[in-house]
Amino acid sequence: MTAYAALEALNARAGTLGEALSILHWDQQAMMPAGGNDSRGEQTALLETMIHEIAAGPAMGEAIEAASAQNDLDPWQRANVAESRRRYLRATALPAELVAAKARAESQAFAVWQQARPADDFVAALPALRTCFNLARQAGQAIADATGQPLYEAMIAGFEPDLSVAEIDAVFDDYAAFLPDFLDNVLAAQHRREPPIPLEGPFDIELQKAAFQDIMGALGFDFDHGRLDTSAHPFCGGTPSDVRMTTRYSDGAFLDAMMGVVHETGHALYEQGLPAQWARQPVGQARGMVLHESQSLTIEMQIVRSQAFMTFAAPKLAQAFGKSGPAWSAENLASHAARVERSFIRVEADEVTYPAHVILRYRLEKAMLTGDLDLADLPQAWGDGLEALLGIRPPSDREGCLQDIHWYSGAFGYFPTYSLGAMCAAQVFAAAREQLGEVEAQIEVGDFAPLLNWLRTNIHSKASSGSTNEILMAATGSALRTDAFKAHLQRRYLDG
Amino acid sequence: MTAYAALEALNARAGTLGEALSILHWDQQAMMPAGGNDSRGEQTALLETMIHEIAAGPAMGEAIEAASAQNDLDPWQRANVAESRRRYLRATALPAELVAAKARAESQAFAVWQQARPADDFVAALPALRTCFNLARQAGQAIADATGQPLYEAMIAGFEPDLSVAEIDAVFDDYAAFLPDFLDNVLAAQHRREPPIPLEGPFDIELQKAAFQDIMGALGFDFDHGRLDTSAHPFCGGTPSDVRMTTRYSDGAFLDAMMGVVHETGHALYEQGLPAQWARQPVGQARGMVLHESQSLTIEMQIVRSQAFMTFAAPKLAQAFGKSGPAWSAENLASHAARVERSFIRVEADEVTYPAHVILRYRLEKAMLTGDLDLADLPQAWGDGLEALLGIRPPSDREGCLQDIHWYSGAFGYFPTYSLGAMCAAQVFAAAREQLGEVEAQIEVGDFAPLLNWLRTNIHSKASSGSTNEILMAATGSALRTDAFKAHLQRRYLDG
Repeated sequence: MTAYAALEALNARAGTLGEALSILHWDQQAMMPAGGNDSRGEQTALLETMIHEIAAGPAMGEAIEAASAQNDLDPWQRANVAESRRRYLRATALPAELVAAKARAESQAFAVWQQARPADDFVAALPALRTCFNLARQAGQAIADATGQPLYEAMIAGFEPDLSVAEIDAVFDDYAAFLPDFLDNVLAAQHRREPPIPLEGPFDIELQKAAFQDIMGALGFDFDHGRLDTSAHPFCGGTPSDVRMTTRYSDGAFLDAMMGVVHETGHALYEQGLPAQWARQPVGQARGMVLHESQSLTIEMQIVRSQAFMTFAAPKLAQAFGKSGPAWSAENLASHAARVERSFIRVEADEVTYPAHVILRYRLEKAMLTGDLDLADLPQAWGDGLEALLGIRPPSDREGCLQDIHWYSGAFGYFPTYSLGAMCAAQVFAAAREQLGEVEAQIEVGDFAPLLNWLRTNIHSKASSGSTNEILMAATGSALRTDAFKAHLQRRYLDG
Repeated sequence: MTAYAALEALNARAGTLGEALSILHWDQQAMMPAGGNDSRGEQTALLETMIHEIAAGPAMGEAIEAASAQNDLDPWQRANVAESRRRYLRATALPAELVAAKARAESQAFAVWQQARPADDFVAALPALRTCFNLARQAGQAIADATGQPLYEAMIAGFEPDLSVAEIDAVFDDYAAFLPDFLDNVLAAQHRREPPIPLEGPFDIELQKAAFQDIMGALGFDFDHGRLDTSAHPFCGGTPSDVRMTTRYSDGAFLDAMMGVVHETGHALYEQGLPAQWARQPVGQARGMVLHESQSLTIEMQIVRSQAFMTFAAPKLAQAFGKSGPAWSAENLASHAARVERSFIRVEADEVTYPAHVILRYRLEKAMLTGDLDLADLPQAWGDGLEALLGIRPPSDREGCLQDIHWYSGAFGYFPTYSLGAMCAAQVFAAAREQLGEVEAQIEVGDFAPLLNWLRTNIHSKASSGSTNEILMAATGSALRTDAFKAHLQRRYLDG
């Protein structure tokens, strides 16, 4: 066996355990009875330990060194070695005790947050948050020392491996400067139009399920390699050959549930489009959270919230629910899907104001890491930051720095990927439109195949064979920028 | 860490991987889209390999030796060491190449059987069956050499660790001698009575689901530690704290589906009653397939098919399906649940004739292993054997030696546990009735708690702390015998 083959065998073993873990995670969220929680905790902790034993083991280090010295590798194999090395460096940088302490602290902080958020009690959550933050910073520093990256970049790279803080700064500062005047204009324009006609429910949940499955199928989701279920928080998990999507239903706001489904469908299409011959190898995985989010948002924001898509979907939805009348016109549904509002809660924000929520968290994370912001001052800094970006202050911490789970589960550096993904989606879709020509006309008649093929060819099939910006450059002719996103917003909210 | 603690740690690791595997198996049968099959195969093969690496590894051997030398162990710990040793001996007896060759041959024979059975083509299946049988015998011989057991006993011990061939012979010969006259009498008595009034469907499947969940709950199934789903073949899987039961529905014969559900509920109650403090240790597992089947059949045969249970269930079922009239009386439902008939298919047989199907297979397995029966002569031997036991010959191999999956998936020695379990169930239930007094009266009003508590105390909580006969002796005052089973059949089918 060549050194490179030995490396693939180690990766395959860790990757296969990772697949098992992903199915167990899905089951825990979507299927498992509550009483199974303790033993599921044992199972996932053991699998994670075993994956880490392989990923950071001496055999992996030796295989990477020996494979790097082989000069008969093709570009994908070389990329596989490089990606293996990147992961190995991160895995070996962390002492086992720090990993264990982090896991414990995150589990505790999560439990504290679950109590503190409804009680609007940031003071109660602060000690656990501080512990969690300090350990995350410590872990980030260990990785930064091992990789030579700046601290915050090393932390972001846990979610998005390829974008520098300088690149992210440029993109976010540009949008922050653009937003205030643009938002005023959008709200003024919206004020001049009639509000959308309400959609009268209730909407039977079984009918919703059937309708959403139809839409997923039309968008190209392959039900032979995936399924849709219900969980408290929608997600897309599982493995590329067996994608597990979830959503949540209510018999009132079916449009929210539908947006959740199509968002996760975008993630799922990316996974289903990864190259099967590289399954379970690092080079065969999705490139990172920016490209991943770009795929969900290409579907949700660029396509589904458009007038063209609603032209296709409106009659189907009306029929599915047995409805008719002007409320069920494509125009009215598109109008529902594109309302803009200054608001406090990130997950409920529209696509114009959403980046403000992310830029706020990004700036706060940077300030916490430099020491410029003590965690005790987060409520104040949150209010100041949101006011600077959106002109509003949250009336409570529940609507402010307690609203998101991320920091209370140790995820620092994750937030930026959401809005970078939105910008990336606009850039990707603009390139696809330009190269394909008739995309809107195809969408209006429900022909999504050309667009999906374009995404498969230019994004999905690339997996981790190049960096995020290399993939973007080849697909769109440019590294990540804000112009396509701003042009999209201009078109949808001002020119439309 | 003491040697014993080291042994527990190794067992816990293998046991935890086994739990993960059991959930993945359930998912594969009940949830997984077909396209996930290849990658699921990779996942389960890897987990099985890793479990075997631990179970048969040198560390396990050393821990068992060292723990055996400790003189400070309590009886459960000693039993845990002994059970660990038993498993280790079996695991190390098999060369890895034999395990792999067996798995390949079984997978091939299964595929061949899936084609050959509907085509009624035993000749087409014979080569694959022969390979499968030869490898099973080879594996059995390797285990027999390592453990000092006779060959067939070593094979049976893969499913039921504690019963000798001499004990099984005695029980089966006794029943085979009893059956012909008894069956004639039962059929004559049945002929003198009115046949049951048909139950007019269709029965809505959602209504069936709801009704069965109610019955499971009444019987004591804990939905906080388990769930009921649908699969092609009903089974009870998962883990003791997270039991995954499945059934299949048809809108016609709801009573068959209900019997499947309560059968699996009996298995599930055993799992849920195992001692949680010994979870993932060998001593904490169910003792074997005889006691396991006894628990499913205590519920299905002893309880649910009784007049007393139908007195409780009949009005609930009638209400659930919106039915009324004499067809829905307890007497009529009990009569449906206790029809006897000479027939060809084991899985459709009633409890009087079922043992004949099993004794036939048991005798054929013995003859194949001694070499007295060549596999090519199975169709002839099958017909002769069934005629001797039940007085009928199958008109085809599809209704004869092609009907069961077991041999075509390498399971030789499994069949006897079905009928031993039925006999065991009668013996267990007779002891419970005697010790508890009012069991029938409790069942009529749906009070299953005293009986479940008795089973928990006398069977479930014992796990593998003693042998099958030790547990039976303590619970019923006797090793496994046929009298209680015969008395039960006499009461239900002749005196009733």
